[in-house]
Amino acid sequence: MKALTFHGKEKIVFESIADPEILQPTDVIVKVKLACICGSDLHVYYEHEKGLDHGTAMGHEFVGEIVEVGKEVKRLHIGDRVMSPFTTNCGQCFYCKIGLTCRCEKGQLYGWVENGHGLHGGQAEFVRVPMADATLEKIPEGISLEEGLLLGDILSTGFFCAHQAEINPNGVQAIVGCGPVGMMTIVGAKEYGATKLFAIDSVEERLKMAESFGAIPINFKKQNPLEVIKEHNQGRGADAVMEVVGNGNAARLAYDILRPGGIISTVGVCNDQHLAFSPVDAYNKNITYKVGRCPARHFMDKLIPIVQKKKYDLTSILTHRMVLSEGTIGYDIFANKKDNCLKVVLEV
Amino acid sequence: MKALTFHGKEKIVFESIADPEILQPTDVIVKVKLACICGSDLHVYYEHEKGLDHGTAMGHEFVGEIVEVGKEVKRLHIGDRVMSPFTTNCGQCFYCKIGLTCRCEKGQLYGWVENGHGLHGGQAEFVRVPMADATLEKIPEGISLEEGLLLGDILSTGFFCAHQAEINPNGVQAIVGCGPVGMMTIVGAKEYGATKLFAIDSVEERLKMAESFGAIPINFKKQNPLEVIKEHNQGRGADAVMEVVGNGNAARLAYDILRPGGIISTVGVCNDQHLAFSPVDAYNKNITYKVGRCPARHFMDKLIPIVQKKKYDLTSILTHRMVLSEGTIGYDIFANKKDNCLKVVLEV
Repeated sequence: MKALTFHGKEKIVFESIADPEILQPTDVIVKVKLACICGSDLHVYYEHEKGLDHGTAMGHEFVGEIVEVGKEVKRLHIGDRVMSPFTTNCGQCFYCKIGLTCRCEKGQLYGWVENGHGLHGGQAEFVRVPMADATLEKIPEGISLEEGLLLGDILSTGFFCAHQAEINPNGVQAIVGCGPVGMMTIVGAKEYGATKLFAIDSVEERLKMAESFGAIPINFKKQNPLEVIKEHNQGRGADAVMEVVGNGNAARLAYDILRPGGIISTVGVCNDQHLAFSPVDAYNKNITYKVGRCPARHFMDKLIPIVQKKKYDLTSILTHRMVLSEGTIGYDIFANKKDNCLKVVLEV
Repeated sequence: MKALTFHGKEKIVFESIADPEILQPTDVIVKVKLACICGSDLHVYYEHEKGLDHGTAMGHEFVGEIVEVGKEVKRLHIGDRVMSPFTTNCGQCFYCKIGLTCRCEKGQLYGWVENGHGLHGGQAEFVRVPMADATLEKIPEGISLEEGLLLGDILSTGFFCAHQAEINPNGVQAIVGCGPVGMMTIVGAKEYGATKLFAIDSVEERLKMAESFGAIPINFKKQNPLEVIKEHNQGRGADAVMEVVGNGNAARLAYDILRPGGIISTVGVCNDQHLAFSPVDAYNKNITYKVGRCPARHFMDKLIPIVQKKKYDLTSILTHRMVLSEGTIGYDIFANKKDNCLKVVLEV
């Protein structure tokens, strides 16, 4: 089959690799229809973490149709249109049962093969899905393939980020970063009841879209975010800040605009050696800091009814669309934010 | 009056300083009966933070009797036996109203005078208490002066630490550090319903006392805390860890023994430049990290009924007792943990 594969720092290749096969009786094989490039694919792209085998199929955002099922698969059948969270999960362990599916004891992240072990990703014609009954969800009526793509990762991640922020409808919240996850976090925060919600970025096009989703935009190159928030919160910083960028500057800004006793919710992977605030900083503001990978499988089901309502133009964030064979260009456009790119969809 | 005063690193002097006077109509003057040396007094003692005026009366744990009241004081009268949280608070601002009295907009910490401004501490014959109606609480029937001392700081801090840990009675929790605050955190955690509660330290006498308060002791020099906890939690780390030491080693241990999705609650002041875990560490475990100063005024009232029940031998942690004039020796014994010292009470 054809796939977009990893071959070292900033080197993605469109090439033929072996077709995936059923390895366990609980596996299925999915014929991919659409895939997306995710911000966290860039951690692989820039080789922030070493160890990935060259030739690994990239990507963890995909939707498609089941073309083969293992003998023990019960819930799913050939022909089912399915969406997948970005990590697999067993559905049986402690973490799956408490809703922390992203920390499943048997879970794996797509697009990470090390020493021949692991999972190939979904930016390919086919993908093997382990523990498929627990991992995959059928795409129900009223949900498009594009929406299914969002449910499997960034929409769920946005809701998770807002969930962690314990939105108080009478309070003031801020989101640092108006990339794709930031937009979905706005949607999540609004659905959790946010009424005074600020979205902080420096790119006007992104801020305009943030406004279209219901946030009050702050361009941090033109305005002082803390001062703007204070004006709307009786002189105090934000009650909660959702930081979705995953770098030290964003984390520090999140700290600086938070009021004492507030919550910082972070879902971005930050590769800095140290947190952007010291233990004394944290103590002096009595902060609650919640951080981690989204348990997307846990959120997907809950969000289906919200997506079905079509209240938000969620797929407006899919700014670029191309075929899989053009994926190398897609990575370049996405990684370098060319042409106001927010999100690239790949047709397979 | 006589007081124990700060004169630079590791230099506490028993000397005469000016009697405090009513400066604001909401002030009262308290004749101190008992005071304690607190672990956080050692941050002053070791000059971890610069700026304190030499000659400042030390200490923020005291109880006594009101001997003078300002014109606008309404709730309190001369002769009232009172206890005080370690910070003052107005009772009116946003933070006081949400129960975060330690971050009161007008609040001050006792024992911190800078450029002539601030509050002298309670290790003295008399102490001025601002915003007294909101700050002080009368010591009710059935509460001894010693218990009042504990309510004003470390008992409240222990409960706050346990509160932040969101104790699940069916879960497993651990406390890192069996100093005075650690002991009170055990009491707090037990009252919040903890049933499998581990207390970690390396001093056998402290571990014995921790056991007497209801914890399962782990001597980290003899046992591997993570392995012990895993045996009791189906192979997982602790669901929540309360870290009450305030240094990097303790913070790292708290991280290491936590299960994914767990909570770290910290109430100690840590002067390290960086947190003991990186952003990726935090992400990889989906941690919730709650840190900060205890809103003691908020907790004191709630804890009075618990203290009145006399279920715990709380004052057993008051291992050393001496008169104020011997306080210099008291600091040496306490700071250097001589003679198995846990806590020093000073009679005034």
